[in-house]
Amino acid sequence: MFEARLVQGALLKKILEAIKDLLTEASWDCAQGGIQLQAMDNSHVSLVSLTLRSDGFDKYRCDRNLTMGMNLASMTKIMKCCGNDEIITMKAQDEPDTVTFMFESKNGDKISEYEMKLMNLDQDHLGIPETDYACVIKMPSGEFARICRDLSQFGESMVIACSKNGIKFSTSGDIGTGNVKLAQTSSVDKEEEAVIIEMQEPVTLTFACKYLNNFAKATPLSPVVSLSLSPDVPLVVEYKIEDIGYVRYYLAPKIEDDDS
Amino acid sequence: MFEARLVQGALLKKILEAIKDLLTEASWDCAQGGIQLQAMDNSHVSLVSLTLRSDGFDKYRCDRNLTMGMNLASMTKIMKCCGNDEIITMKAQDEPDTVTFMFESKNGDKISEYEMKLMNLDQDHLGIPETDYACVIKMPSGEFARICRDLSQFGESMVIACSKNGIKFSTSGDIGTGNVKLAQTSSVDKEEEAVIIEMQEPVTLTFACKYLNNFAKATPLSPVVSLSLSPDVPLVVEYKIEDIGYVRYYLAPKIEDDDS
Amino acid sequence: MFEARLVQGALLKKILEAIKDLLTEASWDCAQGGIQLQAMDNSHVSLVSLTLRSDGFDKYRCDRNLTMGMNLASMTKIMKCCGNDEIITMKAQDEPDTVTFMFESKNGDKISEYEMKLMNLDQDHLGIPETDYACVIKMPSGEFARICRDLSQFGESMVIACSKNGIKFSTSGDIGTGNVKLAQTSSVDKEEEAVIIEMQEPVTLTFACKYLNNFAKATPLSPVVSLSLSPDVPLVVEYKIEDIGYVRYYLAPKIEDDDS
Repeated sequence: MFEARLVQGALLKKILEAIKDLLTEASWDCAQGGIQLQAMDNSHVSLVSLTLRSDGFDKYRCDRNLTMGMNLASMTKIMKCCGNDEIITMKAQDEPDTVTFMFESKNGDKISEYEMKLMNLDQDHLGIPETDYACVIKMPSGEFARICRDLSQFGESMVIACSKNGIKFSTSGDIGTGNVKLAQTSSVDKEEEAVIIEMQEPVTLTFACKYLNNFAKATPLSPVVSLSLSPDVPLVVEYKIEDIGYVRYYLAPKIEDDDS
Repeated sequence: MFEARLVQGALLKKILEAIKDLLTEASWDCAQGGIQLQAMDNSHVSLVSLTLRSDGFDKYRCDRNLTMGMNLASMTKIMKCCGNDEIITMKAQDEPDTVTFMFESKNGDKISEYEMKLMNLDQDHLGIPETDYACVIKMPSGEFARICRDLSQFGESMVIACSKNGIKFSTSGDIGTGNVKLAQTSSVDKEEEAVIIEMQEPVTLTFACKYLNNFAKATPLSPVVSLSLSPDVPLVVEYKIEDIGYVRYYLAPKIEDDDS
Repeated sequence: MFEARLVQGALLKKILEAIKDLLTEASWDCAQGGIQLQAMDNSHVSLVSLTLRSDGFDKYRCDRNLTMGMNLASMTKIMKCCGNDEIITMKAQDEPDTVTFMFESKNGDKISEYEMKLMNLDQDHLGIPETDYACVIKMPSGEFARICRDLSQFGESMVIACSKNGIKFSTSGDIGTGNVKLAQTSSVDKEEEAVIIEMQEPVTLTFACKYLNNFAKATPLSPVVSLSLSPDVPLVVEYKIEDIGYVRYYLAPKIEDDDS
């Protein structure tokens, strides 16, 4: 059987918020080491990769590897029933047709159980090669979300240019042009509020705003986001999830026309 | 003439919120003893019964019994004009065509008056027989509202099963099944947060979620709701209104098919 | 060149909120003395007049008079990108095709620049004659906004009657009638909360609620609004903008039919 207990149930609610607008359905792969989910978004442009390590759960048991295909809209309905201070336990049999979500109030006087039917989903895992990135940016996740939201008002694409002095996000459209420059933080008091750049070489790449905005829905998971950029390889946007894992989004840069 | 003054005007606003989605119009019966309103909801399935005792008002005068038919959407517009800390006075002549709502600010510097046309409404009062119920549950009204909202996501009906150990609310639908179990509170610190069951015999009944959700709109009126259940008689959902009265909702259980 | 710097950038955001629903586009006239904007609303019924004095800016330079025609919906998109605690600088060349809005975070680590295309707008300035008004009312702006919102639920027009005892706002419609009476404040503790009437002679005038509601969108600019009324001349609704200027709205009274 499979059983995973998370005292901080609100985490799983936030994880679902971070992926449910990109994916209508997804396979949760459970093994001894933990839970993994990897899927292309509905339009097959970006890739979502979620890892939750077994040691991050308060109790974890997985006798046999299993894959649970879930409709994420249905799962969202169930997660809405979980109070923010409730404990979540996921349970399934070894060859499951259903998964059970149990929510317990802290004092144990309220116990809710939701049993959801599973789906058979095709899936092929993509190998993601390890890459040395030209630039790795760490910045406050709220600032990143705000910049994506602001600039996407003006154009469909956003240019991210990173040099050793700082980062410049820019866009243009019918109204005019817009750009936001962030300086690298000189003296770091609070790491969560700092902009930190690890640079091998400067890089300038263009991305579709729509996907960046969707990635930013993971903001409640972590105060810090990291952006890893290299020419011609997908951008990686990563949010760490406390002591349990991370969610990563991959998005290929747009190819600019020569004459543009 | 008729005149009823309520220093805590916000109460009347909450009362209206508790009935306006079930009833488009209703007759307010005013007599020396107080105000009563009784009406079937728009779909003629559930019954709403409101009692406001004259001694709960800060001033109350009713020279002659009168019945005022009001459009509750219009009354809602007027109540929106009442500040939460304002004093409400309802006024009418002995054979009224209109009712006047007066709102006074606490310092008396602002006085608003709204005069609303009355309607002639057919109405037949239903006698509600006194019943000894198999189970009477007292529980936090916010918890009841939340359970109704959560479970109605999954199915149209909800089963309420009450035994001496606790209460189980359950539902099922296309997505799967869900249930919420509440234990009886063992040691009551705060009565408002306790789940208390008075049971003659266990009972299991099925109700339409839609109406329960509408009843739960009375939640702001009281921290506690009581549910009275017996086989084959309507469920009573009661919210006390401070020292002035109560609103009660009656809903017949669904008849289950034999083979279901 | 033209350059105007406002440390309290949130002010410009509020100014835009106060005019953007009345005007789709407007000319900003910049001169040494400051910035002026004057325009009829889209339906050519009311007039908006905005004055921002140069000495109210933290830095102000205007080498040559210039007029910048702006689409206010586009400007609103840009202003949404300005954090509430950011510093705004507007910049333009002497004969500009574009205007640049620069937003700086307080610590200087974030700098955003938006360049917006300008428009050629016809405009004819209306001379507004100085008038001695029969009544000038000063009252809390939030109270005025609330009264306009409340009464506009019942009718399209609102009567404002001012005498030495107080002000009466009233309306009527299908539901019935409504009125709000405000007494003149007898002893003024906080000037911002007082109702103060300067009266030459009593006045009773009727106005379209729709415009009053639009004027009330300037409420965040000032805790106090002043209403200046005289028979047969437009009402003036004025909100002072801290130490920098004001926004004024002009609205002609409705002519009542003789037999109404």
